[in-house]
Amino acid sequence: MSVQMHIPGVSDLTDETKSPFPLNQWYVAALSKELTDQPVGRTLLSQAVVLFRDGDGRVHALEDRCCHRALPLSSGTLEDAGIRCGYHGMLYNGGGQCIDIPGQDIIPPRAKVKSYQVKEVDGFIWMWFGLDQDAEPLFEPPNYAVHSSGKYLYDGDVYHYEAPYQLIHDNLLDLSHLGYVHLRTIGGDAKTHMNADMRVTGEGECVRVVRHMRDSLPPPTYTAAYPFKDRIDRWQEIEFLPTHLKIWTGAVDANSEDLNDPERGGFHMRGFHGVTPETETTSHYFWTIATNPQSDPEATLQKVVEQTALTFEEDKVVIEDQYQNMLKFGHAPMISIHVDAGANRARRIIEKLRSTAG
Amino acid sequence: MSVQMHIPGVSDLTDETKSPFPLNQWYVAALSKELTDQPVGRTLLSQAVVLFRDGDGRVHALEDRCCHRALPLSSGTLEDAGIRCGYHGMLYNGGGQCIDIPGQDIIPPRAKVKSYQVKEVDGFIWMWFGLDQDAEPLFEPPNYAVHSSGKYLYDGDVYHYEAPYQLIHDNLLDLSHLGYVHLRTIGGDAKTHMNADMRVTGEGECVRVVRHMRDSLPPPTYTAAYPFKDRIDRWQEIEFLPTHLKIWTGAVDANSEDLNDPERGGFHMRGFHGVTPETETTSHYFWTIATNPQSDPEATLQKVVEQTALTFEEDKVVIEDQYQNMLKFGHAPMISIHVDAGANRARRIIEKLRSTAG
Amino acid sequence: MSVQMHIPGVSDLTDETKSPFPLNQWYVAALSKELTDQPVGRTLLSQAVVLFRDGDGRVHALEDRCCHRALPLSSGTLEDAGIRCGYHGMLYNGGGQCIDIPGQDIIPPRAKVKSYQVKEVDGFIWMWFGLDQDAEPLFEPPNYAVHSSGKYLYDGDVYHYEAPYQLIHDNLLDLSHLGYVHLRTIGGDAKTHMNADMRVTGEGECVRVVRHMRDSLPPPTYTAAYPFKDRIDRWQEIEFLPTHLKIWTGAVDANSEDLNDPERGGFHMRGFHGVTPETETTSHYFWTIATNPQSDPEATLQKVVEQTALTFEEDKVVIEDQYQNMLKFGHAPMISIHVDAGANRARRIIEKLRSTAG
Repeated sequence: MSVQMHIPGVSDLTDETKSPFPLNQWYVAALSKELTDQPVGRTLLSQAVVLFRDGDGRVHALEDRCCHRALPLSSGTLEDAGIRCGYHGMLYNGGGQCIDIPGQDIIPPRAKVKSYQVKEVDGFIWMWFGLDQDAEPLFEPPNYAVHSSGKYLYDGDVYHYEAPYQLIHDNLLDLSHLGYVHLRTIGGDAKTHMNADMRVTGEGECVRVVRHMRDSLPPPTYTAAYPFKDRIDRWQEIEFLPTHLKIWTGAVDANSEDLNDPERGGFHMRGFHGVTPETETTSHYFWTIATNPQSDPEATLQKVVEQTALTFEEDKVVIEDQYQNMLKFGHAPMISIHVDAGANRARRIIEKLRSTAG
Repeated sequence: MSVQMHIPGVSDLTDETKSPFPLNQWYVAALSKELTDQPVGRTLLSQAVVLFRDGDGRVHALEDRCCHRALPLSSGTLEDAGIRCGYHGMLYNGGGQCIDIPGQDIIPPRAKVKSYQVKEVDGFIWMWFGLDQDAEPLFEPPNYAVHSSGKYLYDGDVYHYEAPYQLIHDNLLDLSHLGYVHLRTIGGDAKTHMNADMRVTGEGECVRVVRHMRDSLPPPTYTAAYPFKDRIDRWQEIEFLPTHLKIWTGAVDANSEDLNDPERGGFHMRGFHGVTPETETTSHYFWTIATNPQSDPEATLQKVVEQTALTFEEDKVVIEDQYQNMLKFGHAPMISIHVDAGANRARRIIEKLRSTAG
Repeated sequence: MSVQMHIPGVSDLTDETKSPFPLNQWYVAALSKELTDQPVGRTLLSQAVVLFRDGDGRVHALEDRCCHRALPLSSGTLEDAGIRCGYHGMLYNGGGQCIDIPGQDIIPPRAKVKSYQVKEVDGFIWMWFGLDQDAEPLFEPPNYAVHSSGKYLYDGDVYHYEAPYQLIHDNLLDLSHLGYVHLRTIGGDAKTHMNADMRVTGEGECVRVVRHMRDSLPPPTYTAAYPFKDRIDRWQEIEFLPTHLKIWTGAVDANSEDLNDPERGGFHMRGFHGVTPETETTSHYFWTIATNPQSDPEATLQKVVEQTALTFEEDKVVIEDQYQNMLKFGHAPMISIHVDAGANRARRIIEKLRSTAG
């Protein structure tokens, strides 16, 4: 089976006429909670951007470069009307137009910087990257009811990866690695994970992987968060879309409920994973974890968040080591095994989106 | 207005047939106080040089490379007669000739390294960089009476910048940035700086910018150093020459004296700024600050030096950020505003000197 | 005299049709003591390798890359049967064949990684690098009786150098640098070293340098380790082979014994120096030092090892500075002096071995 993957410096299969990233997509640019009274400078899909809120709380994204002497606007300061450069004080509004040049009456019309389409939905700042950069977005950014429904407590963070985005997709679509990489938190017995019942489905740009591990021992994070009686029936439901993944995992007491029923009880962890390329070789990883604590909600949430952070730090080490080693070995072929079905399907989707964008 | 600037990796306008730096010039290579009983290794205009004093206190500059096995001579040791390599002990005199090979009687004539023209004047070590490297200097290095007159106390330091030299010229020639970058020290009200009376003149390779800010509030460094009654009349006189700048700033009580009179009283700060390219993308910044303390001279000098160092560290952050951002954005054009008149004039002088050098 | 040397980025003489390293050679890959219950990942001659012991204590070397998703096997775990990848648990035996894919019954035959020829002899792990990588080694790796004879106590370590391997050869073949670089330990009076009686001989791929320093003052390491009466007669016997050097140094009381007699008494230090290229520009340096303590053997050994480590750290600084300076100055020629005879002979041997390998 031939599976293409865009790994700069590595893949034979890279077609330079294609975009390195799927375009005509909304990508996560920030978590809502990151944008307070300071601007945030961040490179997204190889473009240096400053993100900030104006006096009304509206979020804007501009090219991160003053048009006068090229200072990053992200080292400037926020005002109600926009963002002021920290070198000679030029002020820009949310549309990128300069609206004040201190000591000078006339503002030349070309005193402006590029602005980007951003929308804030359910705790995320989404940013549109179009094939045609001047065109309007073709559709709306996604809602995320897990954050807005009130049924869950959640928190999250942003991690930076020295690795291309598709290696993070691979990692999230194949949870069989939990038994080897995440023994301390959500892992548990390795064979249980490798031998899970797995079903891979999907349509369009979506891939779904469902894995059931029945009658297994609860891992450390689970026992710490929920009063299981003994062995558990555990599920992992992964939904991949080109710019983000949602992973709904959890467990009930063994043989107590139907694992396929979305209304099942027990312990739930609902993860959101925004995977946004920083450059072709580095990535931003925006994650939140939501859970349904039975008692002492804040303490339980905090514990779940801590363990999730620990888990993702373990993944980060593995993925960055993997990329360094891929660079070292260049074009050496990879063989696929049974657990790769979902990841390989996602790679084909990304490959197709890169072509249509080219 | 088209203004050329040699920014490696950035400018469209770079003509590779030109020298990256003005030649036939004296550049500051070191402060006198740096050369004690240890040699100093330093790259100047892309040439690795060792600077040292011999037993008579005379300063010499040699190629920083033993002709035997290429060790930097700057990791060797000083003797009365010259500098001895730290690997196998070859001794070189100030002219670069090897005068001792331990254990070997005959010294081959080709056992020598290149030497440079250096002169020590008023606390600076100047080094000649000629278009023809073997020719004698065409003129003498400049005096600096501020150091030798006995009217001022002074001290200084050397900073290293990860940015090309012309960005430091820009910064020093346009002091309107004080209100945004240096609030904590010599800044003060931003609008005062942006609205200063400014006059730009010059002849030959010299640019002069004079700025007056009348009836303004004294900034923190000024009030700490001098007993102003209330508001002040403040001057800034900048003199640019291709390898260094002199900046005479100060203030008198508002409406008490003629700001154009060089004999004016009040509080004075006289800065010397030697901007010497290390490479095309990095720079040495040699500075001294002289002042005329009214009381407790040593303590006042120390305070002024500390605040000046703090100010230059703020500039360093801005200039290095600027250069990184210029590299990120490549050939994006810059627009000029009213405060850039002096800096733009200096750029044209440097551009012309690079051509005649080619 | 023209002496060739393969210094990447420096030498005019580099012939790219040659191998950068002598091939058909055994190189030291590790000290025996390094391989315990953890695998060791190491790049040797530009190849990333994992070294480990199986349950029987036998040493194996494999390509450091899981054939599934390219993780370094060296971040995996050891089992009796081999090494298990830390991502999805694939297990490899010492021959590089995958023998377990968790959760999958069939193991495809192409699920394997490259294996290397390794042999453990007298405390070293030797690895064969052939001109034809699939051919058997042409000869056996060397014994090292100094470790196995029981006459000496020894210990050692591995250092990493940011410099090409031939600069380490140079350093070890020319001990005249002791008086300038190693004053604190094995140096002593510089002139004594530079004026030593020196004889350079050799045959085939071997160079021998013998140096005698009669009636000299003992250096710090010697007086600390042995009860010399006063002045000493000191010898240094260096034997160079393409992948390693042996250096037998020591001293007897002045005029008490024949320095050319291998059965001479006094204080002995016998050094082994495995110089294995990591890449063309970086090196591994495996060293052991053996000595013959007169009293309190463990404490004396410890002192000798500490001083040797200190000495090699001094060499590391010099050699890395030298390489950086060679890169800075590019093709500038080097002149040779009397002490270079042995090093120049070794360079010609390496040059010849690189050609026959091409």
